[in-house]
Amino acid sequence: MARDTNLSCLLYGPGKVRFVDRQVPSIEDPHDILIRISYVGVCGSDAHFWTHGGVMRKVSEEEPLVMGHEASGIVHSVGPAVTSVVPGDRVAVEPGFPCRRCKQCKAGRYNICPDMKFAADPPGNHGTLARFFRIPEDFAYKIPDSLSLQEAVLVEPLSVAVHGVRTAMLAPGQSVLVQGSGTIGLLAATTAKAFGARAVFIADINNAKLDFAKTFVGCDTFVPDLTSTPYEEAARFKKEMDLEDGVDVILECTGVESSVQTGLYASAAGGVLVQIGLGKADLTLPILAMCEKETVLKTAWRYAPGDYEVALELLKSGKISVKPLISSTVSFENAPEAWEKTRKGEGIKNIIEGVQDEHDV
Amino acid sequence: MARDTNLSCLLYGPGKVRFVDRQVPSIEDPHDILIRISYVGVCGSDAHFWTHGGVMRKVSEEEPLVMGHEASGIVHSVGPAVTSVVPGDRVAVEPGFPCRRCKQCKAGRYNICPDMKFAADPPGNHGTLARFFRIPEDFAYKIPDSLSLQEAVLVEPLSVAVHGVRTAMLAPGQSVLVQGSGTIGLLAATTAKAFGARAVFIADINNAKLDFAKTFVGCDTFVPDLTSTPYEEAARFKKEMDLEDGVDVILECTGVESSVQTGLYASAAGGVLVQIGLGKADLTLPILAMCEKETVLKTAWRYAPGDYEVALELLKSGKISVKPLISSTVSFENAPEAWEKTRKGEGIKNIIEGVQDEHDV
Amino acid sequence: MARDTNLSCLLYGPGKVRFVDRQVPSIEDPHDILIRISYVGVCGSDAHFWTHGGVMRKVSEEEPLVMGHEASGIVHSVGPAVTSVVPGDRVAVEPGFPCRRCKQCKAGRYNICPDMKFAADPPGNHGTLARFFRIPEDFAYKIPDSLSLQEAVLVEPLSVAVHGVRTAMLAPGQSVLVQGSGTIGLLAATTAKAFGARAVFIADINNAKLDFAKTFVGCDTFVPDLTSTPYEEAARFKKEMDLEDGVDVILECTGVESSVQTGLYASAAGGVLVQIGLGKADLTLPILAMCEKETVLKTAWRYAPGDYEVALELLKSGKISVKPLISSTVSFENAPEAWEKTRKGEGIKNIIEGVQDEHDV
Amino acid sequence: MARDTNLSCLLYGPGKVRFVDRQVPSIEDPHDILIRISYVGVCGSDAHFWTHGGVMRKVSEEEPLVMGHEASGIVHSVGPAVTSVVPGDRVAVEPGFPCRRCKQCKAGRYNICPDMKFAADPPGNHGTLARFFRIPEDFAYKIPDSLSLQEAVLVEPLSVAVHGVRTAMLAPGQSVLVQGSGTIGLLAATTAKAFGARAVFIADINNAKLDFAKTFVGCDTFVPDLTSTPYEEAARFKKEMDLEDGVDVILECTGVESSVQTGLYASAAGGVLVQIGLGKADLTLPILAMCEKETVLKTAWRYAPGDYEVALELLKSGKISVKPLISSTVSFENAPEAWEKTRKGEGIKNIIEGVQDEHDV
Repeated sequence: MARDTNLSCLLYGPGKVRFVDRQVPSIEDPHDILIRISYVGVCGSDAHFWTHGGVMRKVSEEEPLVMGHEASGIVHSVGPAVTSVVPGDRVAVEPGFPCRRCKQCKAGRYNICPDMKFAADPPGNHGTLARFFRIPEDFAYKIPDSLSLQEAVLVEPLSVAVHGVRTAMLAPGQSVLVQGSGTIGLLAATTAKAFGARAVFIADINNAKLDFAKTFVGCDTFVPDLTSTPYEEAARFKKEMDLEDGVDVILECTGVESSVQTGLYASAAGGVLVQIGLGKADLTLPILAMCEKETVLKTAWRYAPGDYEVALELLKSGKISVKPLISSTVSFENAPEAWEKTRKGEGIKNIIEGVQDEHDV
Repeated sequence: MARDTNLSCLLYGPGKVRFVDRQVPSIEDPHDILIRISYVGVCGSDAHFWTHGGVMRKVSEEEPLVMGHEASGIVHSVGPAVTSVVPGDRVAVEPGFPCRRCKQCKAGRYNICPDMKFAADPPGNHGTLARFFRIPEDFAYKIPDSLSLQEAVLVEPLSVAVHGVRTAMLAPGQSVLVQGSGTIGLLAATTAKAFGARAVFIADINNAKLDFAKTFVGCDTFVPDLTSTPYEEAARFKKEMDLEDGVDVILECTGVESSVQTGLYASAAGGVLVQIGLGKADLTLPILAMCEKETVLKTAWRYAPGDYEVALELLKSGKISVKPLISSTVSFENAPEAWEKTRKGEGIKNIIEGVQDEHDV
Repeated sequence: MARDTNLSCLLYGPGKVRFVDRQVPSIEDPHDILIRISYVGVCGSDAHFWTHGGVMRKVSEEEPLVMGHEASGIVHSVGPAVTSVVPGDRVAVEPGFPCRRCKQCKAGRYNICPDMKFAADPPGNHGTLARFFRIPEDFAYKIPDSLSLQEAVLVEPLSVAVHGVRTAMLAPGQSVLVQGSGTIGLLAATTAKAFGARAVFIADINNAKLDFAKTFVGCDTFVPDLTSTPYEEAARFKKEMDLEDGVDVILECTGVESSVQTGLYASAAGGVLVQIGLGKADLTLPILAMCEKETVLKTAWRYAPGDYEVALELLKSGKISVKPLISSTVSFENAPEAWEKTRKGEGIKNIIEGVQDEHDV
Repeated sequence: MARDTNLSCLLYGPGKVRFVDRQVPSIEDPHDILIRISYVGVCGSDAHFWTHGGVMRKVSEEEPLVMGHEASGIVHSVGPAVTSVVPGDRVAVEPGFPCRRCKQCKAGRYNICPDMKFAADPPGNHGTLARFFRIPEDFAYKIPDSLSLQEAVLVEPLSVAVHGVRTAMLAPGQSVLVQGSGTIGLLAATTAKAFGARAVFIADINNAKLDFAKTFVGCDTFVPDLTSTPYEEAARFKKEMDLEDGVDVILECTGVESSVQTGLYASAAGGVLVQIGLGKADLTLPILAMCEKETVLKTAWRYAPGDYEVALELLKSGKISVKPLISSTVSFENAPEAWEKTRKGEGIKNIIEGVQDEHDV
């Protein structure tokens, strides 16, 4: 039997974390289900919260926030209208809940719903780092037996990658440059390959990361010379990679200005760059070079309808394995350790265990 | 009978123009035709050439250039394989000639053909400001009786506008903000209306131009306050125009940084900005605001296959009348006057007559 | 004060109608609203129900059905979460309610939601021909002052037309053949014009209808010769209309086999035919002729997200006026008269008044 | 040195073949090249010509035709403007030459160019089964060292498959039913897998072919029961394959009516069927079932710009190997044997050697 309490890990400010017993969420909508959280992954934004108390909006003593948005778990209980899962099912959790009624939701773009309730988004939208988390049944995705609950945590970042690749409308046979070889970059590159890309390249300034990428993705790599100009580096990239006409698709996963510029200069005529990574709020971009080639700059925000399904399918079919990305697993009580590792750039994906309880499940 | 000489207006450097009798072009390809030029329109780039001797590449005493790329005329002679026109036909001239063989040409995007030969583009691609101009038959568009040869000069800028609107993939019922109320902005706005846009707005800092726009387009106007920030101006625009959720499509016809920024901030979730106007080579853009809304930044370069046909249809059907845009007509010998007017911002579209010849036509 | 009863018009079988006081629907979901129905339009399917007791699924003494799905009304009461309308608002009613949770709903295609609850669809989905009708707030569309509640009934068929035109992805400058000049055909043709179609043609075998179409749409018309073959009629159409290469878009609003065949033969290379009208379950189609031209056959089902908004905008802006389509208005008690008229082909759009009540509203 | 004669294999009528020394084609356009043909593949249409003397238009004693359109070879000589190949290059030949000037060519759809000159298409367009064949340089595709000239013959049917899959706009994660397991069906299925399809199924009534498909494609197979109805067979397919909601994409490579019907019934809501195979000129299709699901019927004709490049890339990268499809190779003089084999359904791809000549190459 599960405990009646809902032990949760809350942030009250930079570096201020407390573990609090909150009320177990109740089934409100007949389609609601309650998830017993198994694992929670750490993303760069979690580390930023840990250090700065938030990104755009901050947590506070008055408005603390349950952390976590990459999560897997086991269905604990279900509302009376639920048909797609039963208690005991192992699931990956999609952590953003749109209004289902606005123009964007109806048009098939719930990721830009203005009323989105996203996990661990202050103020008020608590996250998944708790014993229990309540979601509508259609945001729980049953995972295959071949996938561990730890790996299932990576369905979230893989969905970000899938969304980026789909936003690019990557066509089979195209060449792809992925900029940045962190979790998202690595997953974007493997996804591009699984989607029929002709040639995939990863660029990063960190040689160790690129070595990992070479093995994980199986692709050529490029180290930009930061003492050179983006224009020159783009030219060098095209020459070294035998892409005289430029690269068809650029998946920009860094948000770094010089990287975005290099990507745009490297673009083929009619190419597209998808901005996936976030960095500075404003970037200087070579608009004239873009115009002459009709380069398109798209932006990708989280994941849209269907992305989770595609991500899971990539894992189920074995086209992508996320196991090599898991670097460490800490216990629930040691969550700050995982944030610290991520902040320091240690490992690729650090994971936090859900609340352990011998009486539980 | 037409003279055997081909009087042409060449630029040799900033402010240095000479009228030279060049050789009449011969029919080389069996699909070639010779056009007896009737009128040539002046575009901002002509004025820039007149003042600076070129934009990216310059003319010189060694490599002078025949000016002009907006042109209408009468078919003078045709190659043996020509079937679509006969001598005497009144035509609008599409002034860029792609290779027809490269990947872009075959994919339906000849406007970004790397081997494009565009009129009045140095070095070596002479323009239309001459007695005769040779083109392939499929770049001559017969004009309806209802259209004067003077008006036919405006098929070129109208095609730029059409290309911008088509690049936006403007869907019926969408709202549109056009930035800049010069020739291209005015034509983009009327085109957007003709394509079923719900609400069209024009923004410009020149009140006189906006007054003209109100009548010509029939739309609401907006004067950005340059002492305010683009973010604030976008908010004011949305409030004043009752567009709480932002504007669906922005057609940016200025190339001015603050204008592009305002457009991007004014964009609705999922909106698109098409960069049509050219200004500085680099612009600072609010990438984070774009990402949160998945705003797309597209770029439009000249005109693609089909744009001339659509432009002509808009004129033929009477949906758009370009007559009100014609501000002045000078004789061939006074071409520099037309460039000067345009440089000074006098009038909207200034036109140069082709070579007059009593023995001709 | 509104009565506590909900007088409704139910069908129990072919020709068997009864007026029954049913319970007033209660607000169940916090976003529900109650509409006091003002007018209900009659569509061909209503006449078919009246004559045959249903289309695919039939009504019966045991499972009678409230008729009606084209409706306008006044907001009577609203649930606690409703923000978009207030009691007293005049609205057009979108009469199909999707699940909001399935793959199709999330992907922006709720019209093909397998759990769609559509008004007057047996068994069990009662229609709008009653004093009150309950809907979620986002399926009520406020109408402008310029639109009467009678005209608002036509937002439904106009949305069908809009959906057909959007499904065709009609591009500005394209030529369009509309087959059938009933309500949907007429509205499809005007919508195509409003969306920038170059040339619009209507084909019908009924000369009186075509005469109306000429005035209402302002287009050329074509009378197929049923003693000829579809192939020959397509050739004659192309010749007479000066469309040597065929027509870009065919909006098929009859469902009649020979008409669909003629449309497909008349298609240009790369053309598209959208099947909007429904007739026989199976049709013989010229697949080889389609293959050689890569003709696409699309199908349009009701209306998708955004279609109602576009339809209303077309009415609000005055681009389309539906007033000329309203042929008769009968009182609630005389609903069968309206079905009879429609069955006999009398008039274009016959309308039924909502329940009249001196104590009401 | 190559001989001055151009030994060619011509068909004069059903079963009437002669080997004739024709004139060696000369370089006419500066971009022309001359190919020394190495191998020519046999397609079903060749067998049909052999038996019936043509498909729609027939050959005759007065207008015999050089056979063959699937070809590989070695560049023999090049025109003065040629830059992409040099004599000695091993190439796959794209055998259809569009006008490059019409609306379709310019729009990126040269495969439906009305002036297409396709190899072995009577009257007058001679084929590739000759010592020499002249083509524009951009229709010769250099093959990698890893690909034999025999295998290169299959770039043509693979391009047909690629075009079908691209026409479907197959999105990663979709399910695909391929109908027919001949050369095109097999290649369509492997291409769909390479493009990221989730689940690929092949249906055929020939168990031996399905056994080959299981190994070659690595997919589940389905044998339709011809004594049942297409509706029932579609239901059985969906049940057996655990595709409750239907299949996303159907690639129809048979042209057989019951197969097309089954495919349309098996389609998911919003699904698409691409007709690739050709059979009867007219087919009866379940239009009502299509409408309710908004199923789209597309047609694929040969190959469009870019398809050859993608096909070659699939071979170069090793994602697809066509070697297992090559069943037999006969000498030039025995070409009719290869047609006979194909007519009898022997083997998958039967190949004819080019003219052998000890003095040659």
